[in-house]
Amino acid sequence: MSETRKDAVRNDILEAAGRVFKRKGYEAASMKDIVAESGRSFGGVYLYYANKEQLFLELIGRVYREMNESAEGGEGTAPWEAVGRFLRDQLARAADADNGLAPVLYEYLIVGRKEERRMKLIGERHDAVFGAIERLLRSGAEAGTFRPTIPVEAIALTVMSFLDGMFFESIVSGPERIRLDDQFRVLSDMLRSVLMPGEASAVTEEGNPE
Amino acid sequence: MSETRKDAVRNDILEAAGRVFKRKGYEAASMKDIVAESGRSFGGVYLYYANKEQLFLELIGRVYREMNESAEGGEGTAPWEAVGRFLRDQLARAADADNGLAPVLYEYLIVGRKEERRMKLIGERHDAVFGAIERLLRSGAEAGTFRPTIPVEAIALTVMSFLDGMFFESIVSGPERIRLDDQFRVLSDMLRSVLMPGEASAVTEEGNPE
Repeated sequence: MSETRKDAVRNDILEAAGRVFKRKGYEAASMKDIVAESGRSFGGVYLYYANKEQLFLELIGRVYREMNESAEGGEGTAPWEAVGRFLRDQLARAADADNGLAPVLYEYLIVGRKEERRMKLIGERHDAVFGAIERLLRSGAEAGTFRPTIPVEAIALTVMSFLDGMFFESIVSGPERIRLDDQFRVLSDMLRSVLMPGEASAVTEEGNPE
Repeated sequence: MSETRKDAVRNDILEAAGRVFKRKGYEAASMKDIVAESGRSFGGVYLYYANKEQLFLELIGRVYREMNESAEGGEGTAPWEAVGRFLRDQLARAADADNGLAPVLYEYLIVGRKEERRMKLIGERHDAVFGAIERLLRSGAEAGTFRPTIPVEAIALTVMSFLDGMFFESIVSGPERIRLDDQFRVLSDMLRSVLMPGEASAVTEEGNPE
C-alpha cells in the first residue's frame, strides 16, 4: 500500500473514531465501536491503531495544531487585530463546542486526571495552548503596541482559563443561555484595557473583536 | 428518632457520600460504596436516600448555598471591597478545587449533559451562581460606585465563565502550574477596569483583591 493510501486509511479511521467519541464520550467508547463505525475489519484497524487512547490523542493533536495556527499566521497584522482574529476564531469554536471534541476532552481530563499518562497530555495541552496565546501577546508587546502593567505570562494564563470556562459553559448550558457573544465582547474590552492601558477601553467599532 | 437525631444521621450519610464521590468520581461511585463508607446498613441508608444522585444533588446544593452567602453578606461593605472579598474566597476554593466536589460536578455535568434530569440541575446551577455574582455587581452599580459601560449581566456571565475555567484548570493542571494567584490579580484588574472605567486600573495595594 502506498503512503498516500495509508494516510487516507488512517484518516478514515480517525474520522470514525471522532464520530464515536462525540456520540458516546471517552470512557463509554470502545475499539469495537470504532471498528464498527469505520466499516473495516478488526485487523484492518489494529494495524494502524493499538487502542482508543492513541486515536483520541491523535485527534486532539490536530485540534491543537489548528489552534496554534489560528494564534499565529498574524504576520503583517497589527497586534490588536491579531488578538481580535484569534478571539473571533475561539468564539466560533466555543459556540459549536458541544458538537466537537471539547466535551470528550474535558471528560478525559477530569476523569483521568490522576493517571500518569493523561497527566503528560495535560501538560502538553497546557503548554501548547498557553504558548500560542503568550506568543500572540508578546509579539504585540515587543512591537510596542501593547504596554501591559501586568506580566504577559499572567495575562496569557488568564485568557486561557477564560476560554476554558467559556467552552465549558457553552457545552453544559448552551451558547445562547450564557450569551457567548456578549461574553467575548467583555473579554475583548477587558483584555484591551490591560494590554493598552490608558487608551479608550470602551466599546469601539473598529478593532473590537466582535 | 428525634428530628435532630435524623439530621445528624443524614449529615453522616452525606459526608460518607462526599468522601466516596471525591475518591471515585460520580459515574464510578455506587450506593454500595456509600453504604460501606457510612458504616451503616443498606436499610439504614435507603431510609434517607433513594439513590446516589439524590445524595450528590444535596451535597452540591450545600456548595451553592455557601457560594451565595460568600457573594452576599456584604452589607455595609464598599462595593469594590465586597467584590474583592468574593474573589478572594473563590481563589481559596479554586486553589483547593481538586480536593472538593468540583471535579465530580464537572464530570456529572459533562458526561450527563444530554440527560433531562441533569439539564435541570445545570439550569439551577447556572442561575444560582450567576444570580449571586450579578447581585454583587448590580448593588455596586446602584450605589453609583460602579459605572460599567457594558451591561452588568454580561460582566457577571463573563466572571462566571472565568471562575469555571480557573476551577477547571486548577483541577487538571494544579494551582501552581497555572499561577492561580497571578490570574486572580489579572481578573481583579480587568474587572476593575470595566466596573470603574477611567479610574487608575493598575495594581494598587489597597482594595486589590489579592
